[in-house]
Amino acid sequence: MNGAAQIATTDSPSTQIPKAQTWPKNAWYVACMPDEIADGPLGRTICGERMVFFRGADGQPTALEDFCPHRGAPLSLGFVREGRLVCGYHGLVMDCLGKAAEMPGQKVGGFPAGRRFATIERHGFVWVWPGDPDQADAACLHPLEWADSEEWAYGGGYYHIACDYRLMIDNLMDLTHETYVHSSSIGQKEIDEAPVRTHADAQEVVTSRFMDAIKAPPFWRMALRGAGLDEDATVDRWQLCRFTLPSHVMIEVGVALEGQGGYDAPEAAKASSIVVDFITPETETSHHYFWGMARRFAVDDAELTDTIREGQRKIFGEDLEMLERQQANLLRWPERRLLKLNIDAGGARSRLMIDRAIAAENVAQV
Amino acid sequence: MNGAAQIATTDSPSTQIPKAQTWPKNAWYVACMPDEIADGPLGRTICGERMVFFRGADGQPTALEDFCPHRGAPLSLGFVREGRLVCGYHGLVMDCLGKAAEMPGQKVGGFPAGRRFATIERHGFVWVWPGDPDQADAACLHPLEWADSEEWAYGGGYYHIACDYRLMIDNLMDLTHETYVHSSSIGQKEIDEAPVRTHADAQEVVTSRFMDAIKAPPFWRMALRGAGLDEDATVDRWQLCRFTLPSHVMIEVGVALEGQGGYDAPEAAKASSIVVDFITPETETSHHYFWGMARRFAVDDAELTDTIREGQRKIFGEDLEMLERQQANLLRWPERRLLKLNIDAGGARSRLMIDRAIAAENVAQV
Amino acid sequence: MNGAAQIATTDSPSTQIPKAQTWPKNAWYVACMPDEIADGPLGRTICGERMVFFRGADGQPTALEDFCPHRGAPLSLGFVREGRLVCGYHGLVMDCLGKAAEMPGQKVGGFPAGRRFATIERHGFVWVWPGDPDQADAACLHPLEWADSEEWAYGGGYYHIACDYRLMIDNLMDLTHETYVHSSSIGQKEIDEAPVRTHADAQEVVTSRFMDAIKAPPFWRMALRGAGLDEDATVDRWQLCRFTLPSHVMIEVGVALEGQGGYDAPEAAKASSIVVDFITPETETSHHYFWGMARRFAVDDAELTDTIREGQRKIFGEDLEMLERQQANLLRWPERRLLKLNIDAGGARSRLMIDRAIAAENVAQV
Repeated sequence: MNGAAQIATTDSPSTQIPKAQTWPKNAWYVACMPDEIADGPLGRTICGERMVFFRGADGQPTALEDFCPHRGAPLSLGFVREGRLVCGYHGLVMDCLGKAAEMPGQKVGGFPAGRRFATIERHGFVWVWPGDPDQADAACLHPLEWADSEEWAYGGGYYHIACDYRLMIDNLMDLTHETYVHSSSIGQKEIDEAPVRTHADAQEVVTSRFMDAIKAPPFWRMALRGAGLDEDATVDRWQLCRFTLPSHVMIEVGVALEGQGGYDAPEAAKASSIVVDFITPETETSHHYFWGMARRFAVDDAELTDTIREGQRKIFGEDLEMLERQQANLLRWPERRLLKLNIDAGGARSRLMIDRAIAAENVAQV
Repeated sequence: MNGAAQIATTDSPSTQIPKAQTWPKNAWYVACMPDEIADGPLGRTICGERMVFFRGADGQPTALEDFCPHRGAPLSLGFVREGRLVCGYHGLVMDCLGKAAEMPGQKVGGFPAGRRFATIERHGFVWVWPGDPDQADAACLHPLEWADSEEWAYGGGYYHIACDYRLMIDNLMDLTHETYVHSSSIGQKEIDEAPVRTHADAQEVVTSRFMDAIKAPPFWRMALRGAGLDEDATVDRWQLCRFTLPSHVMIEVGVALEGQGGYDAPEAAKASSIVVDFITPETETSHHYFWGMARRFAVDDAELTDTIREGQRKIFGEDLEMLERQQANLLRWPERRLLKLNIDAGGARSRLMIDRAIAAENVAQV
Repeated sequence: MNGAAQIATTDSPSTQIPKAQTWPKNAWYVACMPDEIADGPLGRTICGERMVFFRGADGQPTALEDFCPHRGAPLSLGFVREGRLVCGYHGLVMDCLGKAAEMPGQKVGGFPAGRRFATIERHGFVWVWPGDPDQADAACLHPLEWADSEEWAYGGGYYHIACDYRLMIDNLMDLTHETYVHSSSIGQKEIDEAPVRTHADAQEVVTSRFMDAIKAPPFWRMALRGAGLDEDATVDRWQLCRFTLPSHVMIEVGVALEGQGGYDAPEAAKASSIVVDFITPETETSHHYFWGMARRFAVDDAELTDTIREGQRKIFGEDLEMLERQQANLLRWPERRLLKLNIDAGGARSRLMIDRAIAAENVAQV
């Protein structure tokens, strides 16, 4: 397939200014990191809904709409007292179900209830279900082996990015861009010379690329050192980008000493990790990007965790600029058709899975 | 009435995005402080009208529309020469009636006149009447005893606030918020525990609250010291918020040594003052806030005046943040009903008085 | 004619918010200075078109639309390799005709071509023709004697200005404003007292003003010194503003020792120069302003070139503020008629020439 361009000859509506629903609502999205609600409430817009997050009396995260029924103040300007959210304007107290519990000098029985969103804390993140809370099902959460195992170390961070969340999915499902956007860290010429394969089933879309017998680029030289291997060695490198609904991309990446089996090489002969990407829509043209890296080598090396985190922060900052300017360009030329090449198959199949999930939600509502 | 919640069951249009006239036009608003036009013209938008203020040859303040009839430059970029306003672009000279008086090398007799707004300087402020200047009547200005008496000291300042001016009126007519917004200065738990009464007649709306036998909060401890009284004493505290058209709120506040008569205690046993709030609409979602405090104690203590001014600046800065974010939230949920509780009666009655004044203006125009 | 005001009694649509075409498309505009594309591509919007500029293999400047046909990224974020533009996202290579030349792992034969704009480098500037490239004719470029002669020195700079480019033309075709906007540098009272004459033919509009037997203002005192003349001398001063399509204003300015012939005085008795103004529309309410000064005195004095450039930068910064605030005012009062006085004749005639050029383009398209 390498070299055979697939050119779209029809409009690609999902890359234009969205007019219809652009994200599944009945799904778990990462809302925040636990430390963001450690000291008080957090206001954040997710899937177009303005929410306030805080911890209830049982320590569980809670999400309500960020609107006090009294005078419309943002509840996120208030504070948490005994597991309930106190409005910072006139003291109305909201319970974890979005009902007014009390207010100084007032009987609150007749106050209208605010909207509540289902939440859950798992795998080191707080998750929210922006749609119907009665349909929220913890079983829908993906298992994240690396998050709950001592054999892995994890470090990550956050970026707010002013582009459609699907442009980020496109970006991550086609790592060809590493050669250009990240030329000084993880990019190398062999990436865009190696063939790419995309496979999709009902659960996920997988785009994979294998580069054998190459020299490691700077980031992976650092990882080889961290893993106690020779950074100058010839290696086999791999990238497997896995998209799952609603908008998660887990990328298995690594290098193994040449001829040891590559992706399947024994742990001692490779440095491998998972690039973790939770991509949470904010508005039609912005999203929250929770990124990180889970690794199986040198898991007790906290300094390495910090080094990797800072490396990723710099690399993903390069994506940020490109994506925000791509978004601005698409808004400038809203009618323009884009190409869907073989390298874009991962993003295209992921968008198809999203579109089907949205359609299924709307059928279910009829 | 304390404890009996009054819940609005119909839309409250005046807290939504305004579509109709949102302020009386034929009324006196504070336009600026005199020192703002001491050195040259001042451009400011008031009630949706872009105006330029300057002093004429007789020293009286003048307001014209901020638009040069020649090429549309803002006249506020020009300068004052012999009591007339010279456009800073090509030198057209406007007189105090908004007529072109002269221009180098031109006969100006046929130039179209610009719009003039009635102004008056009184009580230490420059006032403007954004509506029909022929209806402007100095007799409509409120007497401000504190502004013209040597028994009072005054200090104040200015904030530009990005919210509907009526949200500020609501804020000031319901001081329950002090417990939450100003917890470290003037707030105390007794405020939202004390009953509040609202009374309205044709001239004003008055909301009052009395708190007997309490400890003074930090601001009032400072005031007690300033008045030469014991800051640790048990006191009776009062708040009387007086709204008058178009948008002024004068709040009588004070503390008296316990049992000395409270609000009616002799001067020597109390520290009392008036919180002065002139709230001038700029646009539908912004206003000019001229705030200050007039006091009857330690009137010769200029340092105390400065201390109080800085204290107020900090306190009103807390309101600013809450109000601007409340405005943003109301724009986000434009269709949402708000509650009108007993504590909101002062704001609700004030808005009613405003709505009636607007309606009366429109009847008069027919 | 001096003193006889000509008052417009009908709407002046071209000073209002534009709804129709506001600039000729088939004309040469200054796009950038050569050093702006020395190190890589430059993204710039000209006449509403987002373009990317770079140098091709032959060293000639090239302009394409700043949009990669693959995924819509701005090509200006990429880099130039062997005279072709490489997209910085996934490596698509564009040739100088706007065709995809190659892309790693892809056959690009069927890729849609991007739009190309005609360009030319001449007189020390890169020029672009935003309309039909087949009509682009190098012969339409004005001869600029000062740019290509060793008898002249040139220095200049750039401002981005947030106003309709025609407000800048008005500004430069009526130097009356110097008395007010530039009172501390080139303004003097004699300017707005001297009569102004405007003449137009098919090629240009010329507005001229002559001031005899005056004292030189600060800028010209500096120029007299630079030219080796007595800065305290009484001088004859002149200004000839020449507008040519699409939007160039060359202003011949100078002072000569009194009685030596003024504009026609021998070189040794005068300091003269040309204020160079290339005014390139960006959007309906913004433009690129390439300004400079060409002089015939002290042409080898590089320090003087720098001094003049900094003097101009300060002076044109004063225009910038006035023009941007004039634009804001015109948007605030879109229905307002402006005056067209005798001093405005140069701008009015220039706008007429622009309107006729636009009309001719549209006739030609039918």
